[in-house]
Amino acid sequence: MPHYTIGLDFGTLSGRALLLELETGDEIASAVMDYPHGVMTDALPESVGGARLGADWALQHPRDYADVLVWTIGEVLRKSRVNARDVVGIGVDFTSCTMIPTTRNGTPLCYLQEFQNEPHAYAKLWKHHAAQPYANKINEVAAVRGETFLQYYGGKISSEWQLPKLWQVLDEAPHIFEQCARWIEAADWIVWLLTGVETHNACCAGYKGLWSKTRGFPSEDFFAALDPRLAHVIDEKCSRDVLPLGSRAGGLTVPMAQATGLLPNTAVAAGIIDAHVVVPAVGITGTGEMLAIMGTSTCHMLLHDAETPVPGVCGVAADGILPGFFAYEAGQCCVGDHFDWFVQNACPKAYLDEAAAKGQRIHAYLREKAERKYPGESGLLALDWFNGNRSVLVDADLSGLILGLTLQTKPEDIYRALIEATAFGTRKIVEGFRHEGVAVDAFYVAGGIAQKDPMTMQIYADVLHMPVKIAGSEQAGARGAAIYGAMAAGRANGGYDDASEAAAALGRVREHVYTPNEGDAQKYDALYAEYLLLHDYFGLGANDAMKRLKAMKRKN
Amino acid sequence: MPHYTIGLDFGTLSGRALLLELETGDEIASAVMDYPHGVMTDALPESVGGARLGADWALQHPRDYADVLVWTIGEVLRKSRVNARDVVGIGVDFTSCTMIPTTRNGTPLCYLQEFQNEPHAYAKLWKHHAAQPYANKINEVAAVRGETFLQYYGGKISSEWQLPKLWQVLDEAPHIFEQCARWIEAADWIVWLLTGVETHNACCAGYKGLWSKTRGFPSEDFFAALDPRLAHVIDEKCSRDVLPLGSRAGGLTVPMAQATGLLPNTAVAAGIIDAHVVVPAVGITGTGEMLAIMGTSTCHMLLHDAETPVPGVCGVAADGILPGFFAYEAGQCCVGDHFDWFVQNACPKAYLDEAAAKGQRIHAYLREKAERKYPGESGLLALDWFNGNRSVLVDADLSGLILGLTLQTKPEDIYRALIEATAFGTRKIVEGFRHEGVAVDAFYVAGGIAQKDPMTMQIYADVLHMPVKIAGSEQAGARGAAIYGAMAAGRANGGYDDASEAAAALGRVREHVYTPNEGDAQKYDALYAEYLLLHDYFGLGANDAMKRLKAMKRKN
Repeated sequence: MPHYTIGLDFGTLSGRALLLELETGDEIASAVMDYPHGVMTDALPESVGGARLGADWALQHPRDYADVLVWTIGEVLRKSRVNARDVVGIGVDFTSCTMIPTTRNGTPLCYLQEFQNEPHAYAKLWKHHAAQPYANKINEVAAVRGETFLQYYGGKISSEWQLPKLWQVLDEAPHIFEQCARWIEAADWIVWLLTGVETHNACCAGYKGLWSKTRGFPSEDFFAALDPRLAHVIDEKCSRDVLPLGSRAGGLTVPMAQATGLLPNTAVAAGIIDAHVVVPAVGITGTGEMLAIMGTSTCHMLLHDAETPVPGVCGVAADGILPGFFAYEAGQCCVGDHFDWFVQNACPKAYLDEAAAKGQRIHAYLREKAERKYPGESGLLALDWFNGNRSVLVDADLSGLILGLTLQTKPEDIYRALIEATAFGTRKIVEGFRHEGVAVDAFYVAGGIAQKDPMTMQIYADVLHMPVKIAGSEQAGARGAAIYGAMAAGRANGGYDDASEAAAALGRVREHVYTPNEGDAQKYDALYAEYLLLHDYFGLGANDAMKRLKAMKRKN
Repeated sequence: MPHYTIGLDFGTLSGRALLLELETGDEIASAVMDYPHGVMTDALPESVGGARLGADWALQHPRDYADVLVWTIGEVLRKSRVNARDVVGIGVDFTSCTMIPTTRNGTPLCYLQEFQNEPHAYAKLWKHHAAQPYANKINEVAAVRGETFLQYYGGKISSEWQLPKLWQVLDEAPHIFEQCARWIEAADWIVWLLTGVETHNACCAGYKGLWSKTRGFPSEDFFAALDPRLAHVIDEKCSRDVLPLGSRAGGLTVPMAQATGLLPNTAVAAGIIDAHVVVPAVGITGTGEMLAIMGTSTCHMLLHDAETPVPGVCGVAADGILPGFFAYEAGQCCVGDHFDWFVQNACPKAYLDEAAAKGQRIHAYLREKAERKYPGESGLLALDWFNGNRSVLVDADLSGLILGLTLQTKPEDIYRALIEATAFGTRKIVEGFRHEGVAVDAFYVAGGIAQKDPMTMQIYADVLHMPVKIAGSEQAGARGAAIYGAMAAGRANGGYDDASEAAAALGRVREHVYTPNEGDAQKYDALYAEYLLLHDYFGLGANDAMKRLKAMKRKN
C-alpha cells in the first residue's frame, strides 16, 4: 500500500499543494491558486471601505490562504484519485515574516466586522517595509544596551521581522494592538487552522522572532525599554513554546477534514519558512552542505553542529531546519534583480529586437553572447550591491559598482559581470563561514535561476571551486513541505522518524552536476582577488563614497 | 570697399571654404566637399592595384585635398559674387598630425606611377595608429636617455605624431623613405601648393614634431639612437625653419590663381591645426582663457606667457596659436564617445522607441529626462576613462567606472553621470594648470556638443565655477582659418597686423553665456571631491585594478 503526504507551499502571490508518494518519491499531482486579493499595497478593497495604505505597505487577506488551502488540497486529491486514508501527513511552508493579528482562538482581526476597514487588522506580508523606523529604533536601543542577541543576526535586525511589525501596530493603531490576543506567523496560523492547536515553529521564531533555543527571547527589560506596553508581549501575544522542525504539531480537525477531503487526525507538521523547507528537498541531511535559493535575491542555508556567531550572517536557529542542528542563514539582497535591472534599464534595443525576432527570452539571448567569453575577457568587474549588502557587511547603504568599462564594452559583458559579481558575493559568504570554522563542503542551488541558467551555474562552480548541484524538483518548496509532513507522520504511519533519513530518501537533485573547470576557476581567483580589494575598500570604511552619495541623494 | 578672406578647413572626411567679410565679421558664403577617396583603412583603390592595408592603418589621397581646395574656393566666389580683388588673404587649417611624403618640389610620392600602389607613399591621416610600436620605442629610448623634451608632452609622445609615422615608413618601406625628400604636414603641404613655398608652421612642429622655439629639436644623437638612418632626418627631410602662426607664408601662385579664380599673390597664412585655429574664432586674445573643442573627444587650448611644464599636459608650443604666447594643449580621450557608447550599448528599447515616436533625437530625449534632476540626486559617480586618460594621468590603460548603482538607477542617471564625469575631468585639468601657476580664468567651448547640448554646458559651468561661453559660429574652424588669412594680409591690405586685435575684432561667441548656479556648483564641489578620491585611488597606484584587468584581457 503506497503512502502519501501533502506539501502546502504559500508564496507571495499564490499557494500550491503537492502530493508526494513516499515509497517512490514521485510527485503525483499538484495544484496552484492565486490569492484572490493578491498583495494590497495602495488600499483595502472598496467592498470593506477602501482604507488607503501608506508608502511601503504590503498586506494580504488571511481568508485567501484558507481558500487556497481548501481548494488546492481538494484538487490534488481529485486529480490523483488517491484514497484519503493513504495520505499520512501534511507539511506547511510560508513566506516569512508574514504576521497575522488574531483573537485568542485564532480568528484574524480583519474577519471581525468592526475591523474590516482597518489596515493593521490584516496580514502584514514579509515585504511590508513600513516598519523601518521601528526596526531602526530597536537596533539603536539594542546596541546601546549591548544586547547579545544582535550578534547572531549579523548586528542588525530587519524591518521585515515580527517585533518591528508589531511595534508599528502598537504605535499607529493601539486599539488593534489591544484586541490582538495572538501575533502569529502565517505558517503557524495555517497549522492552527488545520489542527485547532496554536504552535510556534523554531524556524520563524529563530530567524524572525529573536528567539534562541539556548538564550530564549530578549529580556523583558529590553522590551520595556522600547515601550513599556511591550514589556510582556512575548507571554501576552506570542509564545515561549517553540516546536522543532519536523515535529507533529497536531492532527487534522474534523471540520478541516470535511473541507479538504482528508481524514480527521492526519498528522500536520510544524510550520516552516518557504526557503528553509527546500533543504531536505535537495537531500541535504547534515552539516557542510550549503543550499542557495536563487531568485530575485539569494538565501543561503547551512547546517552546523554548534552555535558560532559568524560576523555578517543573518541568523542562526537551533532546530531551525532539521532537528538536532543549528541552522544558519545568510543572504544576498539582489541577484535576479540585478539581471532584471539590466534587461529593463541597460539592454539596447538591437538586442531586444533580435531576441524577439529569434523568439528567444532576452536572458537566453544575452547568455548566448556572454558565454562565448572566457573569465576576464571583458576586463569588467562589478560589486553586487545594487540593493545594499545583506550578509558579511550588512549595510543597506552600499551600492553597485562597475569597473573596467571601455568603448569596446558590450552589453553582454556588463550582464556577465553582474552575474560574476553575485558569485563573488557568494564566495565571500562561504569564506566568512569557513573563517569561523563552519564547514562548507558542498553547494546546492534551487530556484528559478538554477533551473533556467546553466551559464550562471557554471560560473558559480568555477568561482566557488565546488561542484554545484541543482534541485531536482521544480516545486522544491512544496516537495520540502511534503517531506516535513512525512516526518510528522512518523515511521509507524509510513513516514519517517529521523529527519536526515527522510531528507536522504526523498530529497532530489538533478543528474547533471556543474563541475568546476580548473582553468576558468584559476582565472576567477584572480578576479575574486580584485573583488575583495574593492569589497574591503568600499565596504570597510577606507572610502565611504557610496554612503556619502546616498546621503546626498536623501538630503537634496 | 569691403575686404574678405577665405578660411580653408580640412577635416577628417571633408574640406570646407568660408568667405569672411572683415569689416563686419559676417560669414558671406561657404562650401563643403567630401574627399572622393574618404579614409582608406582596408586597401588602396582597385584602380591602382588595391594593395591591402594592415590593422590600424588610415590613409588619404592628397589629390583629394587639392580637388577640395579648388572646388570650394570657386564655389564661395560663385555663390557670393564677391570680386576676387577684394579677397585679401587665405588661411588654412588641417587635421594633424596628417603627414605626406613628397619629392623635393612637393609632389606627393603617391602621384608617381611607380609608387601608386605603395601604401607608404600616401598621406598618413592623424588617426593612422599603426605606428604605435615606433612610438613605444621612441618613448623608451627617450626615457632611458633622460630626454627633457618628454616632460613638455606629459611624459609620452603619441603614435599619431610625425616621428613614429616616419620611422614606420623607414622600417617597413625603406625605398619609400629614401625617395621621400620632404616629410610634411598636410597643412603645410596645402600652403606649399597655394604659394609654391615650403614652410613649416609652429603649431604642427610644436605639438606633433618635437620642436620647441627655445630648445629646437631633440639632438641628432637621440635620432641616431633610434636608428642611425634617422640621425639627420630633420635637416634632410623636415626643417628647422618654423613659422609663427599668423605669418604670411607666401602669395598665391599664378597657376593656383587661375585654378581658384583668386588673384595672384593673394596672401596665404602659415598652416595651423584644425582645433587650434578656433582660439581666435571665439575671440580669445591672450592668457587665461581656455578653449575646449568638444566632440567625440575634447581638446583644451590655453595661452600663457611662459613655458612652464605642467604634469600630464599634452604639449606646449611657442607661437603655436597666437604669436607671442606659449600655447598649451591638453585633452580628454573620450567625451562625445562616452555618450554615444551609452546610446548604442546601454540605452533601453523603451527610450529609443519613445524618442522615435516623438520625433526626438535620442540625446535630446535623454537630456529632457536627465535635466529634471539636481546634482547628486541619482547618487551616481563615474570616471571618464572609457578610452583611458590623456591629460593629467596620461595612461591609456585606465578604464571607466560607475559607482552608486541601485535598482532604482535609471538610464538617464547613467547618461548624466557620464556627462558629469567629463566635466570633473576638465576641472582636474584646469586645476592642474592653476597648480603650476598657469591661469585659467575663463572658459570657452566650441564643437558639436557646445552647439547642441545646453544641459552639458550648464553642468560644465557649475562644475568649473566659471561662466561658459559658446563659439558664435557653427563653422568655427573655417572662421578661424579666415582670421589667420586676415593676419597674413596685414593692415595695409584691409587685414590685421596684430593677432590679438584680429581675434578681438573677428572672434564671435554666442550672446547666451552659461552662468554657474551657486547652489548646484556647491553640490558639484561635493561630488568632485568624491571624483578626486577615485581619480587618485585608481589613477595613482593605490589600486591598479584597471591595469591588471586590462592585462588579464590581453593575456587570455
